[in-house]
Amino acid sequence: MAEVAVKSRGRRARRSAGRTAEPGQNEHLRVPYISRRIPTYDILSEESLAQIEATAERIMSEIGLEFRDDPETVALFRAAGAEVTDLTASSWNLKFAPGMIREILKTAPARFTQHARNPANSVEIGGDAMVLAPSYGSPFVMDLDNGRRYGTIADFRNFVKLAQMSPFLHHSGGTICEPTDIAVNKRHLDMVYAHMRYSDRAFLGSITAPERAEDSIEMCRILFGAEFVDQNCVIMGNFNTTSPLVIDGVTSQGIRAYAAAGQGSIHLPFLLGGAVAPLTMAGALAQCLAETMVSCAITQLVRPGAPTILGSFISSMSLRSGSPTFGTPEPALASLAMGQLARRLNLPLRCAGNFSTSKLPDAQAMQQAMMSMMSAVQCGANYILHSAGFLDGLLSMSYEKFILDTDLCGALHAYLNGFEVNDDTLGFDALAEGGPGQHLFSTQHTLRHYQTAYWDSAVDDHQPWETWDEKGGVDAASRANARWKAQLAAYEAPAMDEGTDEALQAFITQKKAEVPDAWY
Amino acid sequence: MAEVAVKSRGRRARRSAGRTAEPGQNEHLRVPYISRRIPTYDILSEESLAQIEATAERIMSEIGLEFRDDPETVALFRAAGAEVTDLTASSWNLKFAPGMIREILKTAPARFTQHARNPANSVEIGGDAMVLAPSYGSPFVMDLDNGRRYGTIADFRNFVKLAQMSPFLHHSGGTICEPTDIAVNKRHLDMVYAHMRYSDRAFLGSITAPERAEDSIEMCRILFGAEFVDQNCVIMGNFNTTSPLVIDGVTSQGIRAYAAAGQGSIHLPFLLGGAVAPLTMAGALAQCLAETMVSCAITQLVRPGAPTILGSFISSMSLRSGSPTFGTPEPALASLAMGQLARRLNLPLRCAGNFSTSKLPDAQAMQQAMMSMMSAVQCGANYILHSAGFLDGLLSMSYEKFILDTDLCGALHAYLNGFEVNDDTLGFDALAEGGPGQHLFSTQHTLRHYQTAYWDSAVDDHQPWETWDEKGGVDAASRANARWKAQLAAYEAPAMDEGTDEALQAFITQKKAEVPDAWY
Repeated sequence: MAEVAVKSRGRRARRSAGRTAEPGQNEHLRVPYISRRIPTYDILSEESLAQIEATAERIMSEIGLEFRDDPETVALFRAAGAEVTDLTASSWNLKFAPGMIREILKTAPARFTQHARNPANSVEIGGDAMVLAPSYGSPFVMDLDNGRRYGTIADFRNFVKLAQMSPFLHHSGGTICEPTDIAVNKRHLDMVYAHMRYSDRAFLGSITAPERAEDSIEMCRILFGAEFVDQNCVIMGNFNTTSPLVIDGVTSQGIRAYAAAGQGSIHLPFLLGGAVAPLTMAGALAQCLAETMVSCAITQLVRPGAPTILGSFISSMSLRSGSPTFGTPEPALASLAMGQLARRLNLPLRCAGNFSTSKLPDAQAMQQAMMSMMSAVQCGANYILHSAGFLDGLLSMSYEKFILDTDLCGALHAYLNGFEVNDDTLGFDALAEGGPGQHLFSTQHTLRHYQTAYWDSAVDDHQPWETWDEKGGVDAASRANARWKAQLAAYEAPAMDEGTDEALQAFITQKKAEVPDAWY
Repeated sequence: MAEVAVKSRGRRARRSAGRTAEPGQNEHLRVPYISRRIPTYDILSEESLAQIEATAERIMSEIGLEFRDDPETVALFRAAGAEVTDLTASSWNLKFAPGMIREILKTAPARFTQHARNPANSVEIGGDAMVLAPSYGSPFVMDLDNGRRYGTIADFRNFVKLAQMSPFLHHSGGTICEPTDIAVNKRHLDMVYAHMRYSDRAFLGSITAPERAEDSIEMCRILFGAEFVDQNCVIMGNFNTTSPLVIDGVTSQGIRAYAAAGQGSIHLPFLLGGAVAPLTMAGALAQCLAETMVSCAITQLVRPGAPTILGSFISSMSLRSGSPTFGTPEPALASLAMGQLARRLNLPLRCAGNFSTSKLPDAQAMQQAMMSMMSAVQCGANYILHSAGFLDGLLSMSYEKFILDTDLCGALHAYLNGFEVNDDTLGFDALAEGGPGQHLFSTQHTLRHYQTAYWDSAVDDHQPWETWDEKGGVDAASRANARWKAQLAAYEAPAMDEGTDEALQAFITQKKAEVPDAWY
């Protein structure tokens, strides 16, 4: 009789859990950023890592990097000891003696805080902290209803809202999609405003021109106060080198703008093997390390201590077409090695994401995404851009994939928690209670752990086939389609001080009025 | 001019590579079994592992395991020192003093060969060797044309053929699907024959009754010769404990049959947390270890040195329905830990697979499959059953998922190869050749590595969106649908000696005639 009573409590407990939370909420897993509790997956030996580092030093000291259209950055490096060779009136080859860049990077923080306007959402970047952000930079958007089309500011706002509603992203990202209905020279204002207004998380600013970087930072001074901005990281820029081994002037000027303001920056070589890098992973890693180290070093010459993040985006290509491929096994291995290299530099790392070349939120999309994303979290990356929405080789931002990816991000929260081994979790008493052949449904141990033992997905279907079939037999993409619409319908904007909002809008109006629209 | 000439060679080389091999072939990755070249992903500390092992010993020594309907196995354990308590006339509780089972297992091989009828396809199991086999045990099959229905012997043969055609499976598996159109007491004969006739790889035999196990082994004596079978492992049985902590008589008799013949066996607790095991991973692992160790130990009491494989199949459940869930993060972590525990016992491990609860070959299917399968390969599992076809929580074998999974198995061949770090792969000269800003398309380094640098998928789409759209805009599942049909159409059976074939068929005819059909 006692056993029956306990069983009945068990059923009530399960029903109650089902009532109190929507699928996919997993309240016990919610954090402003992840603190990784499992070790990293280290695949390279000390000897191999040292060989890659030595090759990176040879690249920096013997081949050098080319800088273009930014004599001020060249002057900074010359003063720091670089060997400068004039190539043209506006381009220079810079060589860095072995160890020089590594030395310059010693003033960069191993871990820092990027503040959000809601202090509860401020994130830490570096060490065992891990921050997930939406995908970045697609000109197109797609959904199952309307297919593929150019992104608009309405799409951009939608994705900011969807990101804000996911408990398993930590950062609002940057150019979630290109708002192609706004002039190229003005869209940064609307993008930064959308992050500020429709999200209360940290975000990225513009990097497409130095004055747009300055505008982004100026808007932060309105939102956070100028003094706070000078003393704290509240915005970051995501910069690409021009591989192989070139840093163009727009990029280096933008990097200097963020660093001078004490703001953060990410330094990413996009290495398509065989095109702009060796197609062997060891070589791609050496080049990646050289490029990202030199780019990061600019920040420390401008303002020692400015937050800076190493980047790695190593891609493969199709043997058949020369098209870039994503989510393949070789770059996943490179990501694991890049995590090791970043830890040896004691600097934060941005790496990989939910990559795919698929054009639909299908089996290919999630198989490739997983191959790439597992390497990102297992390598210990600290900032994972492209955590949600990435399809079509980064050309399209997908509404449905965004939902599938954020759900996966939730599962990764559980994964990165690892599991405790202690007397309670070893559960000997629970097993001994009934002994051989007896179910554990109603043990106190089961009841105590029931609601937190397992990840609860918002989109996966676990029903019996008959139930699933009766309910229409829909696939994961269709469920994701319904979910993003429901999420947008339920969205509520976080509160914002009216005066601040007016000041931001006034700044935008003034800036837009200053110059005519430019569409290139 | 020299540069142009080299570029032109590059283009020819690429075209030529495209012509000489169908997508997904990856000749450079083909092996009879994988030799893992990257380290395992170890997540638990020595202390935590020792705690789990100590709890497993407490389970074996203080709670004990229940044996049913097989006094002979009980007698073997009693003679080896187990404490036997009679429960009923046909069930016994057996307790094993700490260390006793571990001691018995010392005669089991750390690594062994399972011979295939084609010697080139013989596999090694244990150490850094890894063998991938199709999914096992689904009563239903499904494909996109005809949906879900009961499996037949025609489906069974189809899957044996599809497995044989994949370069990235190494083993033909066992009950790929239930051939429900053949009587329950006779279908093992047709299944074993299908593996022997339509594949030339190693396979699993029947375990559903001791006499069916004996039939499976007898058919091997016809195929391989009785003497060879006595001296070598040519077949294995895949046995489940009845969790928690019960081993039923059909199972232990079957285990004894395989071991007595010197054949291999797999010992798998199917632990659904909260139902038949603690839902905390530490507890599930301790129970898994205890159950699989005791089950494996039977083999060594029957015939010391008989090949035996530890098993782990730790599942989660839906908080909402109590349904089993697959491909979730917590069991993936448990798999990683199980790999560590198996290595400490110095025994081969069967673990995880391409698990999913999805009813379609969709985004959910491959996201879950990847979460589970990555843990299998990263934990260093030596025999991965359920590597292809698993859908619907193991209730259905999917033709399309089989294609998607085998393609993933190919990608995992590349992943498990890791990458070399040496002067050639570091590619310094290739990068120095052109220097900053110059593409590497036409370097000798690129041409030398072009065809082997990257995994080439048979089903993934990497085309530009416009090309993909013009070609019909189909998803991965549809491509897989076309592929399994093309594969079956192109299938050619491996040659078999006519006399052997006749002897096998005569044996089957005689066995079938001996008893009436039974359908339960």
